Amino acid sequence: MLKRPSSFHKLSPSYLFPEINRRKEAFLKENPHVELLSLGIGDTVFPLPQVIAKALEKGGAALGTKEGYVGYGQEQGNLKLRTMICERLYPHLTPDEIFISDGAKSDIGRLQNLFGSQVRVGIQDPTYPVYVDGSILQGVQKITLLPCTAKNHFNPKIPKEIDLLYLCNPNNPTGKALSFEELAQIVDFAKTHSITILYDGAYFSYIQDPNLPKSIYDIPGAENVAIEVNSFSKMAGFSGIRLGWTILPKKLKFQCGHSIREDFLRFACTVFNGASNIAQWGGEAVFSDEGWEAIQQPIQYTMKNSKLLKKAFQKEGFTVHGGEHAPYLWIETPHRSSWEVFQEFMEKRHIIVTPGAGYGPSGEHFIRVSAFGFREKIESYLRELL
Amino acid sequence: MLKRPSSFHKLSPSYLFPEINRRKEAFLKENPHVELLSLGIGDTVFPLPQVIAKALEKGGAALGTKEGYVGYGQEQGNLKLRTMICERLYPHLTPDEIFISDGAKSDIGRLQNLFGSQVRVGIQDPTYPVYVDGSILQGVQKITLLPCTAKNHFNPKIPKEIDLLYLCNPNNPTGKALSFEELAQIVDFAKTHSITILYDGAYFSYIQDPNLPKSIYDIPGAENVAIEVNSFSKMAGFSGIRLGWTILPKKLKFQCGHSIREDFLRFACTVFNGASNIAQWGGEAVFSDEGWEAIQQPIQYTMKNSKLLKKAFQKEGFTVHGGEHAPYLWIETPHRSSWEVFQEFMEKRHIIVTPGAGYGPSGEHFIRVSAFGFREKIESYLRELL
Repeated sequence: MLKRPSSFHKLSPSYLFPEINRRKEAFLKENPHVELLSLGIGDTVFPLPQVIAKALEKGGAALGTKEGYVGYGQEQGNLKLRTMICERLYPHLTPDEIFISDGAKSDIGRLQNLFGSQVRVGIQDPTYPVYVDGSILQGVQKITLLPCTAKNHFNPKIPKEIDLLYLCNPNNPTGKALSFEELAQIVDFAKTHSITILYDGAYFSYIQDPNLPKSIYDIPGAENVAIEVNSFSKMAGFSGIRLGWTILPKKLKFQCGHSIREDFLRFACTVFNGASNIAQWGGEAVFSDEGWEAIQQPIQYTMKNSKLLKKAFQKEGFTVHGGEHAPYLWIETPHRSSWEVFQEFMEKRHIIVTPGAGYGPSGEHFIRVSAFGFREKIESYLRELL
Repeated sequence: MLKRPSSFHKLSPSYLFPEINRRKEAFLKENPHVELLSLGIGDTVFPLPQVIAKALEKGGAALGTKEGYVGYGQEQGNLKLRTMICERLYPHLTPDEIFISDGAKSDIGRLQNLFGSQVRVGIQDPTYPVYVDGSILQGVQKITLLPCTAKNHFNPKIPKEIDLLYLCNPNNPTGKALSFEELAQIVDFAKTHSITILYDGAYFSYIQDPNLPKSIYDIPGAENVAIEVNSFSKMAGFSGIRLGWTILPKKLKFQCGHSIREDFLRFACTVFNGASNIAQWGGEAVFSDEGWEAIQQPIQYTMKNSKLLKKAFQKEGFTVHGGEHAPYLWIETPHRSSWEVFQEFMEKRHIIVTPGAGYGPSGEHFIRVSAFGFREKIESYLRELL
């Protein structure tokens, strides 16, 4: 008979966002007329730019014609899309080093599955929950949390006794964006100690300062040590459309010298059949010149929200980190548990935030505030503070 | 440093269809003017019915409007779609027992990951390669292949010393569709010996005889022992759009009594973010009355291809199995290796088939011929035989 995987006992009963939803629904059941402002999960709200919506629309229509119908797609994703991503973002890599996915989360899951249970991992704390939960679900025993605090500028000390380092930059939830020097030091450290970096760049498009690195491959030599996962979700409002990409450079090897890219390709071909073709055609529109220009507008709008929110919370006396090169504010709530503050924000202010404790032990006494949302609505909830 | 998972050494260097593609490309490089007829991978070729294409088109357009835009979807997939699937196909189950996926292959991979390496599995031989390769990649050691031969009517003897039985019905590649009695016997055996069945019903819509079971839940009590994975790919031409569903009944338990459904939900929420919303809207159109009627036409067309192909190969003296309730013919090629026959069909007849050996040891001395394709083209290649 099937045995329950022992790793499941180690997990908290529910993943962070389902738990927030549970509490939200319980509150709304008691208070059906309250309208809550969601600055929690950080979901996109803007309609897609017309050039992108039109591409999706056209794609759907094409599948109804003999000329436009296509079945199974190319193994690693449409070559056209991979070439466009490569040319725009990774000019010194090649399209066959790019894999199109149905989102960063899925490819992180596949990579975790590929790397198995024996890997020693280092994870920033606080962290996007998928890195930890996904590792636990694979049965990984050796997970080292790397505290990111105001004291170390949210740039943690990395131990040399790990095989895999999860690095989210700009960071979710702290909003920290690493400088070129900080990131170069990490790459250097990884090279010296044979650590592979799993770099999550899902928020790169929110970086405002052109001097900050937008990809780990901006650091020379990173293609020897780093995988980059990335996503259309926050960059182009594709959270429901599901599209992402992962870079596995050819130079990246397992200890035995075998190519990680080759094994990932084999694995992905076995248990995955590619992202939806319509989503990929939408992705091609995103990477066209017109689409690329169009997606900057919602990004800048969200970053203006971020600025306003930061100002409002600072005015109220909070110490606020992040929010400058990432759509998240990381707000100190000293002496109070973050779930307590979550509850208070929901009940008194009717604002949903994310309790920092949900991101790991070093997230306690913080809340994360997402800047995604419509300005008028945000302003109406913060009127007295602005 | 990252170590290569030891399981990878056990795999053949490439998955069946990439290997076929490699040989095909090599042949076409030498013979650039030859037009090959593909009866290999079994990809869909028909444009989508208008009611479905329109739904996809409308979905893409809606994402460009303030009213129609949506971000992250519901955890298990759109409730509307789950309800429609439930009402049409599984009236005695509930929508929360249904999970929407980006295809059967992906959910098989997630289930394999969930069940881990210690599970003892039984797999029909020949088999859809994902069951074996995916299990090997998870490090599963105890894989028992269950020979399906003409002698046992492609209905294998099942050992009691397994925890998980993969059961594809109607079968890919043999084309066998189990009778109600045959399937009921398997369910009964599984109950008696505490075996969980992973039932793959991806070809159910090709069943022509109303007395044959179309779902494992047609067998009373199956919800205590069976998971059913299913797919829009072959049923509605969604192979490139990526959409499927998986049934995890609440009654299904691990040995310790914990719900398998609950753990799958936790797992899927951690490493997967749902199928593309546009694909799901298309799926709702498939399950509407109009859509459901419309998808029957290409299915019946393909089954007519199947009949013609069967007749042609029989006329030539081949012994042909399947092709009556599944879009695949399973053709005996005694005394000759199936890769040799593959090569000969490609070089002499310019037809791509699938060598049976690619599906497992009992597939040797067989080829699989897919009935997907346009009739005129198939007829032109088989003219002398029809």
